[in-house]
Amino acid sequence: MSDPAGESTTIERDPPAAPAALPPLRDEDDNLSAAFLDAVVAAIEASDAERARLLTEDLHEADVGAILEQLDAEQRPALIQLLGDAFDFTALTELDEATRVEILEDLPAETVAEGISELDSDDAVYILEDLDSEEREEILAQMPSIERLALKRSLDYPEDSAGRRMQTEFIAVAPFWTVGQTIDLMRESDDLPESFNEVFVVDPAFRFLGRVPLDRLLRSARPVKMGEIVDEGAQIVEATDELSSVARLFQRYNLISAPVVDESRRLVGIMTIDDAVDVIEEEADADIKRLGGVGDEEVSDRVLSIARSRLPWLCINLCTAILASFVIGLFETELQKMVALAVLMPIVASQGGNAGTQTMTVAVRALATRAIGPHNALRVVGRELVVGCINGLFFACIVAGVAVWRFGIADLGVVIAAAMLVNLIAAALAGILIPLVIHRFKFDPAIASGAFVTTVTDLVGFFSFLGFAALWFGFG
Amino acid sequence: MSDPAGESTTIERDPPAAPAALPPLRDEDDNLSAAFLDAVVAAIEASDAERARLLTEDLHEADVGAILEQLDAEQRPALIQLLGDAFDFTALTELDEATRVEILEDLPAETVAEGISELDSDDAVYILEDLDSEEREEILAQMPSIERLALKRSLDYPEDSAGRRMQTEFIAVAPFWTVGQTIDLMRESDDLPESFNEVFVVDPAFRFLGRVPLDRLLRSARPVKMGEIVDEGAQIVEATDELSSVARLFQRYNLISAPVVDESRRLVGIMTIDDAVDVIEEEADADIKRLGGVGDEEVSDRVLSIARSRLPWLCINLCTAILASFVIGLFETELQKMVALAVLMPIVASQGGNAGTQTMTVAVRALATRAIGPHNALRVVGRELVVGCINGLFFACIVAGVAVWRFGIADLGVVIAAAMLVNLIAAALAGILIPLVIHRFKFDPAIASGAFVTTVTDLVGFFSFLGFAALWFGFG
Repeated sequence: MSDPAGESTTIERDPPAAPAALPPLRDEDDNLSAAFLDAVVAAIEASDAERARLLTEDLHEADVGAILEQLDAEQRPALIQLLGDAFDFTALTELDEATRVEILEDLPAETVAEGISELDSDDAVYILEDLDSEEREEILAQMPSIERLALKRSLDYPEDSAGRRMQTEFIAVAPFWTVGQTIDLMRESDDLPESFNEVFVVDPAFRFLGRVPLDRLLRSARPVKMGEIVDEGAQIVEATDELSSVARLFQRYNLISAPVVDESRRLVGIMTIDDAVDVIEEEADADIKRLGGVGDEEVSDRVLSIARSRLPWLCINLCTAILASFVIGLFETELQKMVALAVLMPIVASQGGNAGTQTMTVAVRALATRAIGPHNALRVVGRELVVGCINGLFFACIVAGVAVWRFGIADLGVVIAAAMLVNLIAAALAGILIPLVIHRFKFDPAIASGAFVTTVTDLVGFFSFLGFAALWFGFG
Repeated sequence: MSDPAGESTTIERDPPAAPAALPPLRDEDDNLSAAFLDAVVAAIEASDAERARLLTEDLHEADVGAILEQLDAEQRPALIQLLGDAFDFTALTELDEATRVEILEDLPAETVAEGISELDSDDAVYILEDLDSEEREEILAQMPSIERLALKRSLDYPEDSAGRRMQTEFIAVAPFWTVGQTIDLMRESDDLPESFNEVFVVDPAFRFLGRVPLDRLLRSARPVKMGEIVDEGAQIVEATDELSSVARLFQRYNLISAPVVDESRRLVGIMTIDDAVDVIEEEADADIKRLGGVGDEEVSDRVLSIARSRLPWLCINLCTAILASFVIGLFETELQKMVALAVLMPIVASQGGNAGTQTMTVAVRALATRAIGPHNALRVVGRELVVGCINGLFFACIVAGVAVWRFGIADLGVVIAAAMLVNLIAAALAGILIPLVIHRFKFDPAIASGAFVTTVTDLVGFFSFLGFAALWFGFG
């Protein structure tokens, strides 16, 4: 740190460089390199603590986390115990939940308590909140009482609330303090957050008055009072606010941090952008997975819990499929008389399912990012209707051609074209209206829309095609 | 700003409060309130500049952007011209691309040039890069030459590179400067970035040596040299790096900012977390939309461009559906002899398609977040295979029951059960292997996986069900 800077002209792009003897951490595709992982595994198997330390000491905690994620289940606690004091428990915050819980269960409670007491409060809570309450109590019992109380207070806030993820270390001064006094406090105090970009100003009851960014502090003369340079226009978060709405606040207003207050408006912590980024990523991830019909599943989850989590959606789909098969069953006579109908009918249903999914995907995202609101909803519905008509006409022509070419029956072309047009219009309307209605009733459109939309397109697809055929050909 | 803080005990949660006469900005669902929008529209229609200013002057630029997004196309430039100098062009960075381009085309070039020259360089580039080169030149020609050159340099970097989104305003000092000199520079200089959290240290050729966070600067004594407190371990971004990998770097290492260097390692700008957050959100959004089979579509896009952007995926799906219909056509004899086959066959295909999509969704996300790597790929494939078997057995039993109950033919239950098991195993393998292979060949698995996976499950679904039936019942 006190290297006279003139000497160092090389620049390291990657996390602090490993000495020459160590393999490179990541390959050109940005995955962890096999060579590095092999070296770590070798050190674990040889119980070579010195080698393990050498390999990991200059790594960022995120990379240590990535290594742990790639190891086998029994190697993970082994590595942590091998590293001892050299292991930074922050790395555990970078893991999937299932992996983290597994590791914590395998480690002795004292090791966990010691490791966690070194962390910033937000990281400590993040690790503790996944454990069941018994284990959590056991670990908390081994921690110094001041830290225990601070952690317990955070854990008392509801899951997925700002109180759970806030950092309780921050600097707050009274408005009558001067810039000079504040700077002196920071120079002399040892008990400061690891890094910070602002100082808060509070009243005698510790209620939030405003904040002073460090650049403004630096640009002000020492005798100036903090109350004179305080910025009162801050976006404030309540400890009970949901993390997803906090993340949206960060994103909308490009915040780096935000003060967190309790119900009496007392300053109790700060939310920082890195936590908000994690929430934004988690939310997008959850949206993608819900649209794909899977729950909060992660790659590290166990087989049985995965199979179980995927069942509900598959069951719903089965009901839809059986319903569709009943619709087909209504036309047994027609199918028997003209087997071409059975051959062609999945085309209409499948094309509708896809078009509906496209519209629904755009609608769900637009609702999540608040790009559709009451003011433009009607405009968007109208637009989707037009898109459905255009694509419907286009594909009606194509499938009519295919049907006539394949079966040589011109009338079949007319029937399938009409069914395709009807189903793509139904798909457009279902794709936009179903998410809007689900959202209107305050449910998450990402979860349920898919099932409803494909139900509509399957039913309309089969019914319109077979129904038009029955009318046109007048069987039975 | 110089309000003696003791007096203000109320706290505003929302963007700086509107005076009593103004309607609330957002409703309880966090959408813009209809009342506020109506007030803005009324001001535009009455050409009431004072009222328009009163309504927007205390708003964050993100909220002004949200209002513009909700207005009609001709109201947007009208509002901007009504506001005149009071309009902060930063608000345009918050809009969808299509809306932004439309507004910029409608405004006089001088107005745009004047508005843009007030912005931070990253925001100015963000606005300019969407325009076609002719319009861009026209606007640039009206700007002061220093700013024009800085913007042109950023625009020379490839699209979606760090150079395009970096901020070129920053503070850099030599390593032999003292803390005191640096602080004095900041107190006296007018030409500083709007806000900043660190000072950079560079060599005489302006090559990056390291950085000093403001909190460290504040905690150091005035005579200390900057070279002694510089942090050299920074994550560095090259101006030509792709934004998506830069965003991943920010996310992985919880960065707030990162220095950007050119090919000769000279410091040319900084990337900040707010830009990285936008990229993270854009990437997640693009992933969701690709999985849903739509392109870079936004709610504000025009009908024809939407219809066109959705065509490719629908065309691919049509090919898949026609292929599946050929497979069905192979079994015309069987279908004619037993119409129950036509009624039941979509169930097998549909269930496979859903199970495959589930697996694929998890796989695509895990690849995007680097949670699947070479080290655990095999483990994940094995796990999906087991999940496929479990769910396959479960649904085989159910559909067998449904088939027997519906048609009273026990053999039909055996056939559909076997087909369901086979198709759910095929779905699991296709769902995991197809994204892995696409990723292996350096394509984006989010785009193409869906089409391939449903092709596999449709073909295997129809072929196994009708094939088993042909074998079991021995028709023809």
